[in-house]
Amino acid sequence: MNPAEIRLRARFVVGPDAVHTDATLVIRQGRVATLRPPEPGDTDLGEVALAPGLINAHSHAFQRALRGRTEHLRAARPDEDFWSWRELMYRTANALDPDDVEAVSRMAFLEMALGGVTTVGEFHYLHHAPDGTPYADANELAHRVIRAARAVGLRVALLRVLYHRAGPDRPAEPLQRRFVDPDVDTALGRVEALAEAWRDDAAVSVGLAPHSVRAVPRAWLEAVARAAGERVVHLHACEQRAELAQCAAEHGLSPVALIDACGLLGPRTTLVHATHLDGDALARVERARPTVAACPGTERNLGDGFLPAAALLARRVPVALGSDGQADIDLFNEMRLVEYHERLRAERRNVLAASHGAWWPAPADGRLEVADLLWPMATAHGARSLGLPVGALTPGAPADLIALDLRHPRLAATTARTLRADLAFSAAPDCVRATWVAGRPVIVDGRHPAGDATIDAFLRVMRRLDA
Amino acid sequence: MNPAEIRLRARFVVGPDAVHTDATLVIRQGRVATLRPPEPGDTDLGEVALAPGLINAHSHAFQRALRGRTEHLRAARPDEDFWSWRELMYRTANALDPDDVEAVSRMAFLEMALGGVTTVGEFHYLHHAPDGTPYADANELAHRVIRAARAVGLRVALLRVLYHRAGPDRPAEPLQRRFVDPDVDTALGRVEALAEAWRDDAAVSVGLAPHSVRAVPRAWLEAVARAAGERVVHLHACEQRAELAQCAAEHGLSPVALIDACGLLGPRTTLVHATHLDGDALARVERARPTVAACPGTERNLGDGFLPAAALLARRVPVALGSDGQADIDLFNEMRLVEYHERLRAERRNVLAASHGAWWPAPADGRLEVADLLWPMATAHGARSLGLPVGALTPGAPADLIALDLRHPRLAATTARTLRADLAFSAAPDCVRATWVAGRPVIVDGRHPAGDATIDAFLRVMRRLDA
Repeated sequence: MNPAEIRLRARFVVGPDAVHTDATLVIRQGRVATLRPPEPGDTDLGEVALAPGLINAHSHAFQRALRGRTEHLRAARPDEDFWSWRELMYRTANALDPDDVEAVSRMAFLEMALGGVTTVGEFHYLHHAPDGTPYADANELAHRVIRAARAVGLRVALLRVLYHRAGPDRPAEPLQRRFVDPDVDTALGRVEALAEAWRDDAAVSVGLAPHSVRAVPRAWLEAVARAAGERVVHLHACEQRAELAQCAAEHGLSPVALIDACGLLGPRTTLVHATHLDGDALARVERARPTVAACPGTERNLGDGFLPAAALLARRVPVALGSDGQADIDLFNEMRLVEYHERLRAERRNVLAASHGAWWPAPADGRLEVADLLWPMATAHGARSLGLPVGALTPGAPADLIALDLRHPRLAATTARTLRADLAFSAAPDCVRATWVAGRPVIVDGRHPAGDATIDAFLRVMRRLDA
Repeated sequence: MNPAEIRLRARFVVGPDAVHTDATLVIRQGRVATLRPPEPGDTDLGEVALAPGLINAHSHAFQRALRGRTEHLRAARPDEDFWSWRELMYRTANALDPDDVEAVSRMAFLEMALGGVTTVGEFHYLHHAPDGTPYADANELAHRVIRAARAVGLRVALLRVLYHRAGPDRPAEPLQRRFVDPDVDTALGRVEALAEAWRDDAAVSVGLAPHSVRAVPRAWLEAVARAAGERVVHLHACEQRAELAQCAAEHGLSPVALIDACGLLGPRTTLVHATHLDGDALARVERARPTVAACPGTERNLGDGFLPAAALLARRVPVALGSDGQADIDLFNEMRLVEYHERLRAERRNVLAASHGAWWPAPADGRLEVADLLWPMATAHGARSLGLPVGALTPGAPADLIALDLRHPRLAATTARTLRADLAFSAAPDCVRATWVAGRPVIVDGRHPAGDATIDAFLRVMRRLDA
């Protein structure tokens, strides 16, 4: 037996085409080789389903330090909203030194890994010392975050943020100094240096993330469009209504129209949130087909509003998912929220299946699973968003996969036919028994080998912050 | 040491007044005796938080058999909604024999127990053979469900349903025959016989559940009001808009006004769902103070609409929670959905804290935790709904409690101050390490002793149903 070959037999395998029953996934040199009927000598994983690893397309890892610390009403702020939350978030962001950033990030990535995430897109905007001075290596904190992800074992796309200002004609505020680069060329140079430093790790990639149309001027967006090349570009867009009004006042355009006018709206671009889209913005995304990275768990937490999911699916716009603010790190939950938030508004069931337009072929048995629209959000569309060849168990793809426990009470009695619905509507992180990234085990028997040490380091940081 | 005394020391104890740090809960004869500082000889549970057991105020246990089997669009039904779901649910309900009902119910109760539920309110409407003939004991299926709950170890309030008709002037349909009693006196007699049969088990109680204003005529509601005495009364109310129109046409009243006119709206009554309440209905519940049993996880799944949670809390109406359709059995999640669905609509944060009226005293530090409004929904208000002296670790109360793992990644770095927010917004069933009902262990080290056998029995039923 070739030690570089792994043969995993499972009760179900979620293949790129269908759910296969009693099949073996063969992995060679860290890549998916083939999916075939079982043979003697295969490693029998028993009552599990193998599936592609989940892809968390939008994370701010350090925000794990905020969990449980913003869910209250302060007497001085009876109108708590996104902006009052942001003030608390900035205070936490400014309290973390490089070791803290690494420790808190490891904690967030550990929780992702335990919940079946194999790739994270880290939208990283903490760059400098609290007074705005760059560290000796201007990419110090980006390196720390990447190291945290790699220590846990995740594949990571570091979406390096470009940030310049508090808003139109408003320089960065004191609590935003850690995010800011002096000019776009300096920022782009730092991105290139970061990519160069990690060139030899195939599990690390670097993307460009002009923070939002609020935080960078038009010239920066245009410069990013010129410089991007093969890099993916991520931007926060249309999360809050105030941003739309501000963009209209500055540019006479909606954020999506501005991004389009700058040459940045295309299939390698991801619009994060895209909560408030008017008819013109919907028409533009239908034409240009960026990915939308929705974070419905965070969008509900922050009171952003509803993702226009049915409208996006009807226009064939790929939706990816992110855990964003980390109040709850659960990509299974994010999937179902996309459908559920539409059901709440429409007062109907299986809304996305009825809104899917002509993208998906009608199934032969007339039975269209909503889950078939949700599952790519947590896998293939996340991969598209990050520009990575993962997200499906296709021959040649990196062997990033997860094993789900079919004896878990949430999944007990699932079948080849109901597995997809059960994963989308009823699974949870603790259904994950094992994960692999590039064929290497990350989670084994529901545990991470460095789990305890990671939690202990996180506790030390949090005790100091809370003191 | 008295063997009837158990002394559990924990890092945190969620007491009726506050979260206590490093405290010991003393249990005697199955009841909470006292909460005191630790002493030598106490059983140290380590890094856990002890809290009252969760109360699931509205369950249809057999609907666990539907999971994953309704989340698709059928070609013949592009307009899937509550009513098309109900058709699928009726088919499952009619496919189960008494052994099946018991096995499926055990599975649902096992999952509840693993997720920290110690008491379930089972809204039970499956009574007779599929052709409508009563079993030799007319309470056969109610006994089966109670036995399932007791075998798992849960405290159970069997809310025995009274059902008569498909709607105004429409006799029960063929698939409703299992639910129907011939007349209200017969139905009430069966309830009394059921209560009598379980009189010696202190963990079993029986309530009255006229199904809805659709399924019983006015005279039945009036008869229930006369007969109820100390029994709690539960009714589905205002879940679907069609029900409101039908009730207005038949009675010239909203469902809540009709229930009020029949003398049934009071503090021992629970309105299940209460999704669509007009101003008059809100005024009536403010005055009469029934409990509202919300099931936001199911209400979103069925496309019912939004619970008017902020309006209810502003009127001091206690809200309890239920897992209802069992797509997802997670009382922690149900808690947060109540707040999150309001945030989505209001586009603000911490909405319930700002809507709570004068019920809760303003905290001295000006910091009102939303969680302090959500936690009673999963505990004390559930107890009120079911008429049981549980839901808080008060001296003299039955020792129904749970231990939550503070080393779980979801809860890591929680503090006495943030615990409540973390439980409401970030906890999940797998945070539950242990549970006790009346001082007896049910879940030990995250496992139930009969877990595997329960899953195996459930699998046998489901394989037959799916065949």
